[in-house]
Amino acid sequence: MEIDIKSLEPKQIYKLMTSIIVPRPIAWISTVSRDGIYNLAPFSYFAGISSDPPLLLVSIGSKSPGVKKDTWKNIEETGEFVVNMVTEDVLEKMNQTSLPYESEVDEFREAGLTPIPSSVVKPPRVKESPVNIECRRFQIIEIGRMGLILGEILKVHVRDDILNDKGYVDTTKLKIIGRLGGANYCLISGENTFELRRPDKE
Amino acid sequence: MEIDIKSLEPKQIYKLMTSIIVPRPIAWISTVSRDGIYNLAPFSYFAGISSDPPLLLVSIGSKSPGVKKDTWKNIEETGEFVVNMVTEDVLEKMNQTSLPYESEVDEFREAGLTPIPSSVVKPPRVKESPVNIECRRFQIIEIGRMGLILGEILKVHVRDDILNDKGYVDTTKLKIIGRLGGANYCLISGENTFELRRPDKE
Repeated sequence: MEIDIKSLEPKQIYKLMTSIIVPRPIAWISTVSRDGIYNLAPFSYFAGISSDPPLLLVSIGSKSPGVKKDTWKNIEETGEFVVNMVTEDVLEKMNQTSLPYESEVDEFREAGLTPIPSSVVKPPRVKESPVNIECRRFQIIEIGRMGLILGEILKVHVRDDILNDKGYVDTTKLKIIGRLGGANYCLISGENTFELRRPDKE
Repeated sequence: MEIDIKSLEPKQIYKLMTSIIVPRPIAWISTVSRDGIYNLAPFSYFAGISSDPPLLLVSIGSKSPGVKKDTWKNIEETGEFVVNMVTEDVLEKMNQTSLPYESEVDEFREAGLTPIPSSVVKPPRVKESPVNIECRRFQIIEIGRMGLILGEILKVHVRDDILNDKGYVDTTKLKIIGRLGGANYCLISGENTFELRRPDKE
């Protein structure tokens, strides 16, 4: 079947794109508003983009035309955010923070999560998440209704028990959650992961 | 453990980023050079970024300082590319195309894949892949040694047997492959996927 994108409404395009560009990593982003209110929300238009400088990218939309989502607004105003990775343990709480709360609501409190201080940025990190990535705004590029947030990685916190004997993060120990289409997710574990070396590195 | 990014070399940063930003979708990109040579290579710094306009993003590096990878060069010169999704069936062939071949080499031929015509762009799509996304260059942003390729989606080809009864792509039928850290991959199937509705949409 061939689908002509021009024949679809933006909502249908979103459904199609999110069901074929899979699996997606989830950036569970904590920020602080100018007034000091904590915010926490998940996004899956998320990717690493560069090692030198160390950059990641999150694309964030609007609540309604012209009204940026709190995460975007906070990063624009304060220049700082933390990406927390989502594992099986915190899945339900992550889902709770995906609700469209008012700006005044602290999602840490709503979901029963523990904000703990970051090392170099003001937004707290999620204690219950085993990986926290402290970022500083590098650039924000506005395209259509989206803000492409480029963040420079400053510090990474990794829980000791997920490091392997070479000092690298063992992904299968993370029990990390990936985003699929619709209301679907996947769980990454030892059972569905495998190693495949590049032919010249076997 | 707290990791200060400034203390790491770019190679170590790459290893760290690719082991914590997981699972990543794989963009297996076909392009044609100005001289008409087919190119095919996989990338996992890949994300959807917008529905209106319909855009995806791939971040592509250099072979060596100042020498862009063939995929980047071809998209820059011709303005067109196809993203083919990677499933279990084509995993070994995808791995074959990840080798650093010379620009003159046609990876379709090297890996024994079938190039079939696209609808509106010149680069062929991979017949053996169940999802092909025809794209036109929207913008290329150079940052450090990377090129952020923003592609506008024009057409999507989806194999009929992976559509569900609502006309959407059933991700679990895709047996799609995700990228993890190091030489690790994951397989998305019915066994490790689940549904989790947003609390207000249960």
